[in-house]
Amino acid sequence: MHLIKADRLHQFVTAVFVSVGFPEHKAKLSADVLIEADLRGIQSHGVARLAGYLRLIDAGRLNPKASFTVHHSKPAIANANAGGGSGLVAAPMAMRIAIEKAELYGVGFCGVSNSNHFGIGAYHAMLAAKQHFIGFASTNASPLVAPFGGKERMLGTNPLAFAFPRKNHPPIVIDMATSAAANGKLEIAERAGKPIPKGWLLNKDGQDSEQPADLKAGGTLLPLGSFSSTGAHKGYALGALVDLLTGVLTGANWGPFVPPFVAFLQPTQAVGEGIGHMIGAIDPAAFQPIDSYFDRIEEWVDCFHNSSPIDADSPVLIPGDPEAALHAHHIETGIPIEPTVWAQLALLAAEHNIPL
Amino acid sequence: MHLIKADRLHQFVTAVFVSVGFPEHKAKLSADVLIEADLRGIQSHGVARLAGYLRLIDAGRLNPKASFTVHHSKPAIANANAGGGSGLVAAPMAMRIAIEKAELYGVGFCGVSNSNHFGIGAYHAMLAAKQHFIGFASTNASPLVAPFGGKERMLGTNPLAFAFPRKNHPPIVIDMATSAAANGKLEIAERAGKPIPKGWLLNKDGQDSEQPADLKAGGTLLPLGSFSSTGAHKGYALGALVDLLTGVLTGANWGPFVPPFVAFLQPTQAVGEGIGHMIGAIDPAAFQPIDSYFDRIEEWVDCFHNSSPIDADSPVLIPGDPEAALHAHHIETGIPIEPTVWAQLALLAAEHNIPL
Repeated sequence: MHLIKADRLHQFVTAVFVSVGFPEHKAKLSADVLIEADLRGIQSHGVARLAGYLRLIDAGRLNPKASFTVHHSKPAIANANAGGGSGLVAAPMAMRIAIEKAELYGVGFCGVSNSNHFGIGAYHAMLAAKQHFIGFASTNASPLVAPFGGKERMLGTNPLAFAFPRKNHPPIVIDMATSAAANGKLEIAERAGKPIPKGWLLNKDGQDSEQPADLKAGGTLLPLGSFSSTGAHKGYALGALVDLLTGVLTGANWGPFVPPFVAFLQPTQAVGEGIGHMIGAIDPAAFQPIDSYFDRIEEWVDCFHNSSPIDADSPVLIPGDPEAALHAHHIETGIPIEPTVWAQLALLAAEHNIPL
Repeated sequence: MHLIKADRLHQFVTAVFVSVGFPEHKAKLSADVLIEADLRGIQSHGVARLAGYLRLIDAGRLNPKASFTVHHSKPAIANANAGGGSGLVAAPMAMRIAIEKAELYGVGFCGVSNSNHFGIGAYHAMLAAKQHFIGFASTNASPLVAPFGGKERMLGTNPLAFAFPRKNHPPIVIDMATSAAANGKLEIAERAGKPIPKGWLLNKDGQDSEQPADLKAGGTLLPLGSFSSTGAHKGYALGALVDLLTGVLTGANWGPFVPPFVAFLQPTQAVGEGIGHMIGAIDPAAFQPIDSYFDRIEEWVDCFHNSSPIDADSPVLIPGDPEAALHAHHIETGIPIEPTVWAQLALLAAEHNIPL
């Protein structure tokens, strides 16, 4: 493991994005999103993906100079076309619009079509929380997940992210794939030659599998809930919800037609433009005075932290606690980078003549 | 099983609600919500609960003559106090407000505090869909569910409901508890003397249990995801999300302090008023012309219906398909009522001198 300080890594990533054609402020913003993922311990969505974004640019599928056009049809709703640009840039721009609307109307949403992978939803939702709004961010993604009762890849891992602001603490942050397990967890098991838990995967014939390699052989990820008896139809419904909001509603591709992140796979039939996001902000002060909201949410947090754990050594956490703790730790110690990812970064450094 | 036509049952339920003090239009509305549940096959939330609502009135915890006061602090947000009245009435009133706001601003939310059980969320969400809005309805509920890693009852089964309008078909309807299984399923297993699947229940010591009686003995329901390996932290996050939106934000009670539905259990410490709902509406025509939305959602539905099922005899469904089919069937045949529920209704008929 290499350890690198967040600000050092940020400079590097920004310079790489600038060197491939992003304007400086968009390069910085993109670096922000990736490094926040690494700081929060979501290595699958951090700088490990940098090379992947660049390959999409090389393949002509991601335009670093894309313009972002916004259509305001109703006061509290906008729908934007990201022009084939990066989701790392489009989602924060959409959140700025959602927040402006929430300031005026109490709530605002901005849909985005014709975009690409937006990194971690938590980053975008937390942008709202920094300004004392409740943030929402969601995206569809290339198909890997079977619908309940099905064996075809019809939905992405379609995450839902929410951030609830607190006064003197990091926000409560929910950021969850609507599948039982993330693809990255299967990749880790496959590299380690280990079986995976029941409830993550079906093989290509729709049978339960504990062999991670079955995914690449045409299998599908299971929705949250995993089994019929434990509510897999609910995880399917959540994945469908995300696809309807981010794909069908915005004008992006949806379901099995969402373009893949990996550049060597070609998009299939187009039923819209690019991938889609839905970004929203709600003003908690529209419901009660903001200080009352802050008092109530602290009471809520304390109450859950103080509830009885199963294991006395593992207190009950609130969503976002583990990631906030990792963030604080990584700011202090530096961000750990896996050897294979470090080698990728070193290659990019050499290729673009940027010191790492 | 007794079979009774929906309109006949509606007359009866309306008359009962009138006889205990509801104004006629609120009695009708309440009957609408309960009978829609039975029509959709959600017997746990239909007329089986009628006697329960009446007991809450007898106990002085539900006021049939409550007034509903609305505070409009921001153009697209309202927060209402249901005055200790019925959620069956308050939620549709909140939805009317949310829709009015969505007509003007593209999106509207109305929070509700000081309310009671609102029946099925699907009813309220579908009110929006009937007017071509996307509907959202959520409520907190008395605590039964453990947080991830905990063994205390900290959250209700906290449902999320969404309805997406379609042009010539019933809407896509999602209505799901954020627990792995609903309480009603445990009750059915307990009456039948059968064990329950792994992943539904912890006993009072926080150990996995397959004995439904362990719930009443101080156990807890598991969140959607059930196990650590299959994402129980995600179901916990969804239950927390609902509690934050419907309880903390609106001014209602939250978490372990949400008053119980059953009248013989007293509410514990108050941290707010009654139970809370969050009701919302979004105008799909704010994102694209409504006809384009309708075309796209039909393509989406067809695509999912035509995807490969695991079992060739069980095609892939979209959320709400089974309930819409049951609704059509029950309109035709009548609503089947379990003998114990029929006996309850007969008792109410005698007590209030209303023909059943």
